[in-house]
Amino acid sequence: MRRATSPLTLSLALVLPALVPAHAGDVTEFTLDNGMDVVVIEDHRSPAVEQMVWYKVGSADEAPGVSGVAHLLEHLMFKGTDTHAPGEFSAIVEAHGGEENAFTTTDYTAYYQRVAADLLPKMMDLEADRMTHLRLTPDQVAPEVSVVLEERNQRVETNPDALFREQAQAAQYLNHPYGHPTIGWRHEVAALGADQALDFYRAHYVPNNAILVVAGDVTPDEVRKLAETYYGPIPANPDLAPRIRPSEPPQTAARHLVFEDPRVAQPYVTRSYLAPERNSGDQKPAAALELLAGLLGGEPATSYLGRRLQFDDPKAIYTGAYYSGTSLDPTTFSLVIVPAPGVSLADAEAALDGAVADFLAEGVDSEQLARLKRQYAAESIYELDDVGRRAQRYGRALATSLTVADVEAWPDILQSVSEDDIMAAARAVLVPQTSVTGWLRAPEGAAPVAATPVAGFPNAGGSEVLQ
Amino acid sequence: MRRATSPLTLSLALVLPALVPAHAGDVTEFTLDNGMDVVVIEDHRSPAVEQMVWYKVGSADEAPGVSGVAHLLEHLMFKGTDTHAPGEFSAIVEAHGGEENAFTTTDYTAYYQRVAADLLPKMMDLEADRMTHLRLTPDQVAPEVSVVLEERNQRVETNPDALFREQAQAAQYLNHPYGHPTIGWRHEVAALGADQALDFYRAHYVPNNAILVVAGDVTPDEVRKLAETYYGPIPANPDLAPRIRPSEPPQTAARHLVFEDPRVAQPYVTRSYLAPERNSGDQKPAAALELLAGLLGGEPATSYLGRRLQFDDPKAIYTGAYYSGTSLDPTTFSLVIVPAPGVSLADAEAALDGAVADFLAEGVDSEQLARLKRQYAAESIYELDDVGRRAQRYGRALATSLTVADVEAWPDILQSVSEDDIMAAARAVLVPQTSVTGWLRAPEGAAPVAATPVAGFPNAGGSEVLQ
Repeated sequence: MRRATSPLTLSLALVLPALVPAHAGDVTEFTLDNGMDVVVIEDHRSPAVEQMVWYKVGSADEAPGVSGVAHLLEHLMFKGTDTHAPGEFSAIVEAHGGEENAFTTTDYTAYYQRVAADLLPKMMDLEADRMTHLRLTPDQVAPEVSVVLEERNQRVETNPDALFREQAQAAQYLNHPYGHPTIGWRHEVAALGADQALDFYRAHYVPNNAILVVAGDVTPDEVRKLAETYYGPIPANPDLAPRIRPSEPPQTAARHLVFEDPRVAQPYVTRSYLAPERNSGDQKPAAALELLAGLLGGEPATSYLGRRLQFDDPKAIYTGAYYSGTSLDPTTFSLVIVPAPGVSLADAEAALDGAVADFLAEGVDSEQLARLKRQYAAESIYELDDVGRRAQRYGRALATSLTVADVEAWPDILQSVSEDDIMAAARAVLVPQTSVTGWLRAPEGAAPVAATPVAGFPNAGGSEVLQ
Repeated sequence: MRRATSPLTLSLALVLPALVPAHAGDVTEFTLDNGMDVVVIEDHRSPAVEQMVWYKVGSADEAPGVSGVAHLLEHLMFKGTDTHAPGEFSAIVEAHGGEENAFTTTDYTAYYQRVAADLLPKMMDLEADRMTHLRLTPDQVAPEVSVVLEERNQRVETNPDALFREQAQAAQYLNHPYGHPTIGWRHEVAALGADQALDFYRAHYVPNNAILVVAGDVTPDEVRKLAETYYGPIPANPDLAPRIRPSEPPQTAARHLVFEDPRVAQPYVTRSYLAPERNSGDQKPAAALELLAGLLGGEPATSYLGRRLQFDDPKAIYTGAYYSGTSLDPTTFSLVIVPAPGVSLADAEAALDGAVADFLAEGVDSEQLARLKRQYAAESIYELDDVGRRAQRYGRALATSLTVADVEAWPDILQSVSEDDIMAAARAVLVPQTSVTGWLRAPEGAAPVAATPVAGFPNAGGSEVLQ
């Protein structure tokens, strides 16, 4: 057992004393004999507890041809087991006024319940039960495939942004399965059945591939005893396959794609670059990219792209930069520009390229970097106040090969990033050879669609989170 | 046993009587009890025989992460077996003045020997031996991996056209493994070992996944007896997996890529479109595309693109159109334009698009179609004279789910294609949504490289054949 007090809590307390919550609590981690990792986040401010079980498996672990099976299985985990009827687990949570849900991404699948603290044993009992005793019949699976297809209709087929993002993501990866959508290609989802779901379940839903995160009004000793009682008896799978996905060959050709859809009201341009992910013990390059995204495209009023393209020479009504480094394998750094009325996509793309080139020539604005670092420092303090977000942060990190120590080091690493680090990261990542530029627009001659206000753009390259 | 006399031989004999070879010979097919297909092409004009064994497995059947294993195994098949030393098979062929080789594509792997007819029993003995008794040790595999890496250096790494083609091919397929190069991604080839090669061998090198083609100075009865003697005893693999690869989702965004290499002497533009393949019993759409390729980009002096872009308005020094329908899964239809000096790639692409649009508006030139059909008719007659090419044609067809009847019907189907069929195929295939446009050029400011004469361009989308 390791009990870690975040050094950040101390160092930032000097800067922002009023923001440090009184009961931020400690983080404890240990591993059960069967290989299941456990993280406990103590927070006694309310008599509630959140249990999350994270499986280190996501859509990028799917075999070719069965895209969507990770997400379908997430749905099917709410069916019954040998001893509990379909829906019974959810009904128990609801009857006690709790909340629950689950989500699937490229790298992990997680299940959680937020309930009164005294219900934790029951939650563990039920979660451990469905880790091994899920019972699926073709009768149950077929309707759930329809549910997922309908989810795909709602999220993707009726949404030009999402369809565009799928095509761009597929163009971004030449070999790695991050090119496949987490919800699955429609024709492959339609062909899924109980066999594929059960194969995936048996291969990946084992304690030595799982992380238990318990956050809230508990002590590590209580959690250890409960975890040993409920999860401890589940045998490890000694044949668990190492988590190795096909990796990218050199990407040597800049790609550009045009997606046209008559439903597009507001055309825009996206640009994504292949970018390194956060790696355990070596997070600085990712921290530099995180700050680079903030500097280039954080808040419109202060970011480089915002000032340059929305204010100084108003070619755009929106600009943004995105980077999400919490990823098992190489991820993307992406940019977006939504042109102002009368500005063509070609001109918008040229303006974006011009602004990025100028940024690379000019370097980092020290004051802006200092402001950004203060924001990150403040956010990491605010976050201590939100036990659910903290649980997510640890689970996500551990599910992508980071450690508790990495999570705790991250705020200080962000603060330690220099201007030179950022410019080195920018020069390494913002290269045409690995880039995909996307144009989304209505086809020529399409009837105009009423424009909806631009509320912000999803990360063109980030990992999709499906519930 | 089925003995088929090509109806073409008769019908075209009326048109081109002087071209019909005296001894074109008959084609016979049968299947051994263990599922091995046998095709015999009798041709007694010379006392030679060619044995080909085709395995219905190629690089598109590789698991993710082990690209190149089909081709590596092809190399390793020249190592020894339990009873024959490494290189012994080749030495026997050479000692008798024979020829042999092997090749791997996305869809099949084939081995052949051309020898005096009395050596056929020995060839079958040796080929049957290595179908089941290949012996591979890590000591033998590691040096062969180096050989393949060197082959990749020679064919790809030092060849900007090939590097460009790899990136364009990867962009063409969003989900299907045709996006992977047959030789393999360098980093994946480098990681291959004896285990992967043997797994692949055991899974796919079985008689019920093989086609024996024997062509030359033999009779079907002789071949049947020999095949039953040598291949007959090899047991079928009842667990042979069906040959199902991940298929494409809708391709909905036109892609464009730029590949820059300082070694490029002659920049050019390629365009490929996803296109249907030849399907058994339904070959007309593919025949229409084959003729479309001839009409658009066959001979520069008479093809539409050639006349239009190299003569009438000389924007190009070369144009071409390619289609190769003998493919298990959807293939590509592709175009190329090599701009004349002083014409930019953008202008060349625009000229190509303009010419294609005009072709779609104008329709087929009846005289040119008639001329093209006469050429195909003549070629199919000439081909009867080349027993090696005939063997290849049957083997390739059977390895991609076509039948002997399909092969024999093909020349007549080509003749039966109408102008409307061609225009319907053109309109269905030449759509931007499934297209990949590639620009190959030297980076700006690169020292000029001496241009080599343009001798013709490899099919940007066709299947790669590796020896």
